[in-house]
Amino acid sequence: MSITSPTGAKGPVLAVDIGGTKTSAAVVLDDGRLVARVTAPTPAAQGGQAILAAALRLARTASENAVERSGSTPPVAVGFGTAGVVDPTGRRIRSATSALPGWADTDVADAAEQEFQVPATVLGDVQAFLAGESAHGVARGASVAVAVMAGTGIGGAVLVDGRVLRGAGGAAGHVGHVPVPGAELRPCPCGASGHVEALAAGPAMTAEAQRRLPGHDIPDLQAAAALARAGHGEARAAIEAGGAALGVALAGVIALLDPDLVVLGGGAAAAGPWFEAGLREALTRNALPLLTRVPVVRSSMDADAVLIGAAVEARTLLAHPASTERNEVVL
Amino acid sequence: MSITSPTGAKGPVLAVDIGGTKTSAAVVLDDGRLVARVTAPTPAAQGGQAILAAALRLARTASENAVERSGSTPPVAVGFGTAGVVDPTGRRIRSATSALPGWADTDVADAAEQEFQVPATVLGDVQAFLAGESAHGVARGASVAVAVMAGTGIGGAVLVDGRVLRGAGGAAGHVGHVPVPGAELRPCPCGASGHVEALAAGPAMTAEAQRRLPGHDIPDLQAAAALARAGHGEARAAIEAGGAALGVALAGVIALLDPDLVVLGGGAAAAGPWFEAGLREALTRNALPLLTRVPVVRSSMDADAVLIGAAVEARTLLAHPASTERNEVVL
Repeated sequence: MSITSPTGAKGPVLAVDIGGTKTSAAVVLDDGRLVARVTAPTPAAQGGQAILAAALRLARTASENAVERSGSTPPVAVGFGTAGVVDPTGRRIRSATSALPGWADTDVADAAEQEFQVPATVLGDVQAFLAGESAHGVARGASVAVAVMAGTGIGGAVLVDGRVLRGAGGAAGHVGHVPVPGAELRPCPCGASGHVEALAAGPAMTAEAQRRLPGHDIPDLQAAAALARAGHGEARAAIEAGGAALGVALAGVIALLDPDLVVLGGGAAAAGPWFEAGLREALTRNALPLLTRVPVVRSSMDADAVLIGAAVEARTLLAHPASTERNEVVL
Repeated sequence: MSITSPTGAKGPVLAVDIGGTKTSAAVVLDDGRLVARVTAPTPAAQGGQAILAAALRLARTASENAVERSGSTPPVAVGFGTAGVVDPTGRRIRSATSALPGWADTDVADAAEQEFQVPATVLGDVQAFLAGESAHGVARGASVAVAVMAGTGIGGAVLVDGRVLRGAGGAAGHVGHVPVPGAELRPCPCGASGHVEALAAGPAMTAEAQRRLPGHDIPDLQAAAALARAGHGEARAAIEAGGAALGVALAGVIALLDPDLVVLGGGAAAAGPWFEAGLREALTRNALPLLTRVPVVRSSMDADAVLIGAAVEARTLLAHPASTERNEVVL
């Protein structure tokens, strides 16, 4: 479908963050402020159309609330950040994760343009996170940056010339699927094996803590972190080892991109100082000596970054309709 | 210094390729044709100023020959591709390799602008190689591409949005310094250890063949390849293992960039089918399943690509003076 923006790149943008457990929507104003945020559980088990319908309902609520309560004008564009891989045109879901079964092949941008009659675009959630950090967070002004989101999985994104890189098939930024030593025989959720996600994601570190502390009840990473805080060296070592695996992967990432900085976010990275300590030590030890001083910086915005980045990408699309790689839609 | 181009982005461009053993210069016409190529040994042991003076002399000869013999007009710009790491403004050598001691800190672009009174820019040799393949070779039309040059070392480069990525410090594209399993304790020429260059470069494969075939005289990779051609399974396995290490590294590179293609060049890659066979098998086995079909394509231009890419970068600089990241020079 073809939608022409009436107002150019200025004006409020509707932003939607679709995750495995919850979906949020808000309106992002010109100055980057988020207003009228609403959040609801994602109907993850009910398939793509249910997830999409719930997201559009939330977006409608946010949009109406912004107009009524904040005096905002109606949105000039809609931006999505979502779990899964988005096709390179930013229109539809190319591949789902296990968190959102049935999400693949959903035409998100078409449906949003139909619903709101303004242009829409979709990024992966970590891609949107990095776009947000680049617009208003710790990566502001960066030309080349990498984001890593360490949680239940290891997500990532790449920024070049200030724009998020989608890649030829929309799959750029998969830092979690970089092979690292020590992961060789470990199955990765993607179906291959040997990837850093198989060592550095929350469940992998939890399993390692269970292995090292067989007498303890360690249901999740928070439990492992609690044992680490209580002084259990083996719990600390398990978390440090996960961070170290990610540090080795990042040494390769940095060799390839020579970024201004790496932005680190996610629950695993926040579960205590051991993850980041392991990461930094391994990165310094494994990096090309020219590149050991690339800064690794914690996210300043966390969840807000996804909404803000989705809005930034939608605004960029309005200003430069041809700037989405292989964009086949006339806007 | 500040030089204004009299003629814009059209016109012949002088191109110089400075390698560890030889330096070439030629004139690249608007249609991509190379004319008046001259080549001479690089005075590698005599330090940066001698290397630079020899390169400028060759460039002067190529320029004069092109005017006299091919009826070319004088060059409108000068582009260099060189061993070593170039600073992100494309002006000077940031870091030398062992092949060109004393090359660091040489102000290449300043000297060339003084000499020829036209704008000059410098890329790393593999960066220039990829720019050349992108302009007139197998990567033509690619938005995102990766080049790997496998020889005495493992060099690389990254192309995004059709431009070679320099990175924040000029060091983008160092595929050879991606950590891979199996290299953990192997020293890398960069000073760190564990990098793919320590397994996949020519000398590493030669050493592996020597280890596997203790009764044979194997002075270099060509000798190992000759044994492989003669049917020695252990020689084949040594070369395949090098290719496989590079395939694992490329699985990570592809996960990060989702490129349109990977361009493979260099002497190690050309020493028989075993290197590429090992590379392809390992890449397929280790890549994110979404990305196993990224094409790996042999260079169509080899050495010419460096000269042509250096010229393309210089021409781009003429057309868009601000397009070099962090270009601090007014052209």
